[in-house]
Amino acid sequence: MSRITILTDFGTADGYVAAMKGVIADIAPGAVIDDASHDIPPGDVEAAAFALSRYWRLYPAGTVHLVVVDPGVGSERRAIAARVDGRFFVAPDNGVLTRVLDEAAADRIVSIEDPAYTRGHISATFHGRDIFAPAAAHLARGTPLDALGPAVADPVRLPLPRPERTEGTIHAHVVAIDRFGNLITDVPGAWLSPGARVVIEGRDIGPLRRTYADVGPGQPLALVGSTGMLEISVRDGSAATMFDAARGTPVIIQEDVHARG
Amino acid sequence: MSRITILTDFGTADGYVAAMKGVIADIAPGAVIDDASHDIPPGDVEAAAFALSRYWRLYPAGTVHLVVVDPGVGSERRAIAARVDGRFFVAPDNGVLTRVLDEAAADRIVSIEDPAYTRGHISATFHGRDIFAPAAAHLARGTPLDALGPAVADPVRLPLPRPERTEGTIHAHVVAIDRFGNLITDVPGAWLSPGARVVIEGRDIGPLRRTYADVGPGQPLALVGSTGMLEISVRDGSAATMFDAARGTPVIIQEDVHARG
Amino acid sequence: MSRITILTDFGTADGYVAAMKGVIADIAPGAVIDDASHDIPPGDVEAAAFALSRYWRLYPAGTVHLVVVDPGVGSERRAIAARVDGRFFVAPDNGVLTRVLDEAAADRIVSIEDPAYTRGHISATFHGRDIFAPAAAHLARGTPLDALGPAVADPVRLPLPRPERTEGTIHAHVVAIDRFGNLITDVPGAWLSPGARVVIEGRDIGPLRRTYADVGPGQPLALVGSTGMLEISVRDGSAATMFDAARGTPVIIQEDVHARG
Repeated sequence: MSRITILTDFGTADGYVAAMKGVIADIAPGAVIDDASHDIPPGDVEAAAFALSRYWRLYPAGTVHLVVVDPGVGSERRAIAARVDGRFFVAPDNGVLTRVLDEAAADRIVSIEDPAYTRGHISATFHGRDIFAPAAAHLARGTPLDALGPAVADPVRLPLPRPERTEGTIHAHVVAIDRFGNLITDVPGAWLSPGARVVIEGRDIGPLRRTYADVGPGQPLALVGSTGMLEISVRDGSAATMFDAARGTPVIIQEDVHARG
Repeated sequence: MSRITILTDFGTADGYVAAMKGVIADIAPGAVIDDASHDIPPGDVEAAAFALSRYWRLYPAGTVHLVVVDPGVGSERRAIAARVDGRFFVAPDNGVLTRVLDEAAADRIVSIEDPAYTRGHISATFHGRDIFAPAAAHLARGTPLDALGPAVADPVRLPLPRPERTEGTIHAHVVAIDRFGNLITDVPGAWLSPGARVVIEGRDIGPLRRTYADVGPGQPLALVGSTGMLEISVRDGSAATMFDAARGTPVIIQEDVHARG
Repeated sequence: MSRITILTDFGTADGYVAAMKGVIADIAPGAVIDDASHDIPPGDVEAAAFALSRYWRLYPAGTVHLVVVDPGVGSERRAIAARVDGRFFVAPDNGVLTRVLDEAAADRIVSIEDPAYTRGHISATFHGRDIFAPAAAHLARGTPLDALGPAVADPVRLPLPRPERTEGTIHAHVVAIDRFGNLITDVPGAWLSPGARVVIEGRDIGPLRRTYADVGPGQPLALVGSTGMLEISVRDGSAATMFDAARGTPVIIQEDVHARG
């Protein structure tokens, strides 16, 4: 039983995703295909990297995670395949695997070059169909990673922001905004002391709470979200709207001065 | 061959749905996963309840219907699992199963509490991944319903409107609006006598028709829809737009006075 | 291993798609179901025809392609099933198979009429559930095409525009616009001589390029797209927006006069 997940920014209405699935069904008819998402905002590599970080390790070892968010299609960017903690990845070499590689070291990364594992004619605009889907299908069938092409030592990494911790203050950032308007930051929940206060857009939204129900409807709060990171939410509302926040919006954590003073 | 359907309000772009699928793939790798929808409006339990009513019984016995529309996540609301007419359900206890339970009595409903069937660490914000998906996967693997936790006698029910029938008049309501702008009401088609007239927003749209083609393009009509209930439509148009209708909009059926007089 | 793809304009939120999947799961539990798309614009038969053309032949022989974009449901339009180049199709007879039939001759087309292969009660508004899904499931189980009903000799064809080639000029049209704002035309790339220039909305966007990276960011270009047809794109932008283009927008190709003169 092999399994391939697919993450793209293609939407489904144009038939591009179905074309990829058809290629997979033809090469690896026994592989299970799971749609992860096709609604990544067009060309948003950073959003795809974050979405992927939510699920890649929950799948069992052997799963092939196919990711095609590829604004540089047709340029000189490489097509890569990787094995990380037993899972396989097939993606353009544009940084979309950054968060995966931050979490666990890659066993091996290769450049997909052997024409035995791509379609015969490769278009300039649709490598999802012509390179990535065939490579994923061959991996699902058991083709060894090394057969696809030569090793890659320097995969592209996104320049993600990092939180800065100074005396009494953590300078953090919003790194993702979900459908509910929750703001996910780059600060691990474990960094926050019990009395720390969270400030966004000049507003102190108080200490860390456990869950949404700890504040009244329409009130903002800070909590440790499902990825273990500090999140800012509004109960029954949208923190993105309340704070007019975007990826990169600063979040300040004031540590508990009284506790220390 | 076991099968799990998934209905959520998560969208797919954030990776939450793929996280749930990964958990299922890990616990029950042989289970088939069908996406029902991830486009329920955020937090709209009533819309989810209606969508579920369209498909749950069309699936064969043994299917596990997983429903995660859960605005109360992290509060004291229970997580429940149920068996109704041979199908299984896993959902928050917030009324989302109301229409299922209106259609057929539950054989058994339990509260999901045994930590053997949830993830080890349960977050405060993502029970879809930590409680509901694992429980659904274990049911698909054959775990008995009773193993999940103690029986529940009083599942939450939504206070759905009911049509009222008085002398010569039925007072009904729009209970769902679909993508095409069709207005689904709470009146069974069988209640309508041949000469009855349907009135919405003060406009008499005439007697029951058989199909859209029975009126001209752009004209409104009343017919018995695919769930057996009275629906109001506009041929090649949207009744929701024409009548500025929402869930709860009243619909009046004037029974055939001449026929009786 | 049988496989059914599904293409609709239903969205997923109302539960209509899940109803179709439930019917398939009940009749053909071993069939793999691939979502092609449920986001075709409501009633847009032409868009569905184009999407289908992108993927139908990439799937292996034996695949059943189920297409339900059916604005004429409940009228006298036929429900048809076809076999073309080894793949099966189940769809309303409204022209949605036009591009498939343009690419390859049908081995056989039948009208779906035998009640043994539809649901017992057929609603007036949801033939996806009551006729098309059951027929597709039966084909996936191996029911012969001819069992469904009598042969159809004259399937409905869409009146698609055709490019016109006169002395030195090709008059073409935009036939599809994808999510990225790329404009797909009806001119095969092979028709274009190396020095030909492409003109849209009065603007000469130059000769055929190989890929997006051949022009600067924000610049328009013409290239041969992944279906082999001339496409007009904007690097890191939307040609649909730049040229305010729609399906039917004219595109002029001026052949290389100097080369000939």
